Amino acid sequence: MRMVDIIIKKRDGLALNKEEIDFVINGYSKGEIPDYQMSALLMAIVFKNMNKQETVDLTSAMLHSGDIIDLSKIKGIKVDKHSTGGVGDKTSLVLGPLVASCGVKLAKMSGRGLGHTGGTLDKLESIPGFKIALSEEEFIKQVNDIGIAIVGQTANLDPADKKIYALRDVTGTVESIPLIASSIMSKKLASGSDTILLDVKFGSGAFMKNIEDAKKLAKTMVEIGDGLNKDTRAIITDMTQPLGLAIGNALEVKEAVDTLHGHGPKDFVELCLGAGSIMLEQANICKNRELARKMLIEKLNNGEAFNKFVEFVKAQHGDVNYVLDTNKLPLAKHIIEVRSQQEGYVDEINCLEIGESAMRLGAGRKTINDTIDMAAGIILNKKVGDFVKHGDVLAYAHTNIDNFDEIIKDIQMSFKILKDKIEVKPIIHDYIK
Amino acid sequence: MRMVDIIIKKRDGLALNKEEIDFVINGYSKGEIPDYQMSALLMAIVFKNMNKQETVDLTSAMLHSGDIIDLSKIKGIKVDKHSTGGVGDKTSLVLGPLVASCGVKLAKMSGRGLGHTGGTLDKLESIPGFKIALSEEEFIKQVNDIGIAIVGQTANLDPADKKIYALRDVTGTVESIPLIASSIMSKKLASGSDTILLDVKFGSGAFMKNIEDAKKLAKTMVEIGDGLNKDTRAIITDMTQPLGLAIGNALEVKEAVDTLHGHGPKDFVELCLGAGSIMLEQANICKNRELARKMLIEKLNNGEAFNKFVEFVKAQHGDVNYVLDTNKLPLAKHIIEVRSQQEGYVDEINCLEIGESAMRLGAGRKTINDTIDMAAGIILNKKVGDFVKHGDVLAYAHTNIDNFDEIIKDIQMSFKILKDKIEVKPIIHDYIK
Repeated sequence: MRMVDIIIKKRDGLALNKEEIDFVINGYSKGEIPDYQMSALLMAIVFKNMNKQETVDLTSAMLHSGDIIDLSKIKGIKVDKHSTGGVGDKTSLVLGPLVASCGVKLAKMSGRGLGHTGGTLDKLESIPGFKIALSEEEFIKQVNDIGIAIVGQTANLDPADKKIYALRDVTGTVESIPLIASSIMSKKLASGSDTILLDVKFGSGAFMKNIEDAKKLAKTMVEIGDGLNKDTRAIITDMTQPLGLAIGNALEVKEAVDTLHGHGPKDFVELCLGAGSIMLEQANICKNRELARKMLIEKLNNGEAFNKFVEFVKAQHGDVNYVLDTNKLPLAKHIIEVRSQQEGYVDEINCLEIGESAMRLGAGRKTINDTIDMAAGIILNKKVGDFVKHGDVLAYAHTNIDNFDEIIKDIQMSFKILKDKIEVKPIIHDYIK
Repeated sequence: MRMVDIIIKKRDGLALNKEEIDFVINGYSKGEIPDYQMSALLMAIVFKNMNKQETVDLTSAMLHSGDIIDLSKIKGIKVDKHSTGGVGDKTSLVLGPLVASCGVKLAKMSGRGLGHTGGTLDKLESIPGFKIALSEEEFIKQVNDIGIAIVGQTANLDPADKKIYALRDVTGTVESIPLIASSIMSKKLASGSDTILLDVKFGSGAFMKNIEDAKKLAKTMVEIGDGLNKDTRAIITDMTQPLGLAIGNALEVKEAVDTLHGHGPKDFVELCLGAGSIMLEQANICKNRELARKMLIEKLNNGEAFNKFVEFVKAQHGDVNYVLDTNKLPLAKHIIEVRSQQEGYVDEINCLEIGESAMRLGAGRKTINDTIDMAAGIILNKKVGDFVKHGDVLAYAHTNIDNFDEIIKDIQMSFKILKDKIEVKPIIHDYIK
């Protein structure tokens, strides 16, 4: 088998078989296939796509390129959830303890943030003492004991994906549904859970800019799950404005705590209930999603969800005082009011723009080596559909930098204000399965 | 400027400007742009093509990547001719001395053969003593003195093309009209002649399998010539069967000598007259192609073309005794009759198949390090359109290997014989300009 023949086959629009895909992924992982052949194949895939079977085979080859986590020592059904990432996405912080308080087992490996989207691990680390590095034994014991653990990836999980993703990033081959789907799913499948729920976001702040692409990606990932016998479902959710009101690490932890107390922003609560009810169904905790929804609301109202969060923070060595009283969390030196210079209805809050403003305030990383200011970020005071008058506060910018005038203007510009009232769409746009 | 942005621009179907193309070719030549980005761009070009201006800019950038030969010390108009390569293509051996005998200046750099097509240099080297390495001074002096020199490339001509071609070869990006056209034209333009005649072949033995692609390639190359102010013309010629009767180095030299004596195979003579008359027109030797054709026929008949060949061989240190008496050329140990097992009209002589058979008999190289058996090859006894009876000799295989049975069968199979008489098409199918 020769790599050049495989490239030509794909270039000419033919489907690759399992042997060919295994040859590519094994050879590339071992360094036997050079980058320049891999990038040519990736570009051919961008143009000629992959069918269902090819995408399943690619995912399988990638997931077998490294360790596969064995969670069999955890009793019960282990659920996992993955979001394609967005601005203000603190879902795992609420959804994790919430479903765990219902009896679900969540053994989650999470990532750090880069660019305009924040990472769950960064948010958790704004709680002093919180430890994201657990040994495999500690990890499994914690999930068995309290139902939840969220850790950084330590094992040699899916090295093929790491190598391929780095190459895609510099060769213009990121935008390909089968390549994106196999990258996400191979990592999730290597993490060893029994079920997967995917939150595929669309809009200015998301990787998929429109609903159609988000649906295609979600459908492809569910097909991969089906092809590899893993219960996989997906929701398509709105990222045409930030999720909830808070953007920035400590600010999002505070919002998560408020939400666990039953006082969360409407869109964010709705996302947690919608996603959580699917997870309870996947874990066989509830017969259907309506019953599950009732159970989740109860756990928010009776304090059990919040108590599970406290238990979880404690187990991972975080100082629970910061959770019991979020006023203890770091606060920025400057809190600047961002005021409207127009009157009308908020039509859009451009997520990419506002996410980048938050990053510039100190909340995010431009490169992997940057450090994050945990206190920095933005609190929205208006959301899409709200009416604003000239001079109304649109948002509050939290920062420790002194030179913020340009950023404040940019936050102002992220709000698109129109004369006509607009209809606000539900946060969960569609369900795949 | 970032390479990844240029890749994405081309991937999205936009045209690259001159600055971007220069950035790519300069950066890649210097090793500043890695192979894996170049191969991704090449694959994007395979899918999204290049427009006329891009192809001109690409050619210009490549030709300026190395030395450009200065032929200004040669008096008169310097013509050049390039064939895209085929089986039995000994055209330069006849056309060179023929047009030189009419007063044209031909300062030609040629190549070696690889795979099923032979190279002009290999054929010339079957004449003992023939020297293909001349210094620039010797080269220029010889063309000034006798009107013709054919040498191997010594200068650092078009290094960008060498590097890009090697990459295309292993990344499935060979088949792209703008990439093929710029590769050929940048080398030709760097060789310093005043005019270029391109012989673009189509058919089973050629790089372009069909007439449409051959025309597209020819048109693109003529456009490049126009864009860079070089008189460039092209002919589209038939390679659905081997050119002439002889395939193999010494065998082709013998056929070339016969042709220079006025006894050449019909199709080959016609190609030399057609191409030669354009070259005489380009060099302002004749007012039009009809007059040029008459002059060429005269030079073949009065012995001047052959005498020029003798003069040329002598000047490059070849032993002219082998040209004056071609029976002195090496002869293979075995000459095997390949007989027909069918009756009917020869419909096709598959060039790719018969070229590969000739290679296996010893006439060609599989890899660049293989040595060639100068005596090996095939002499056709039948051509397309001929009627054959069961048992008639189709061809003679010349070889020094003893284990030839399989090859003989394959040569037999290269002849497609049908019941119905077919119309034989002229060797020159079309003229571009």
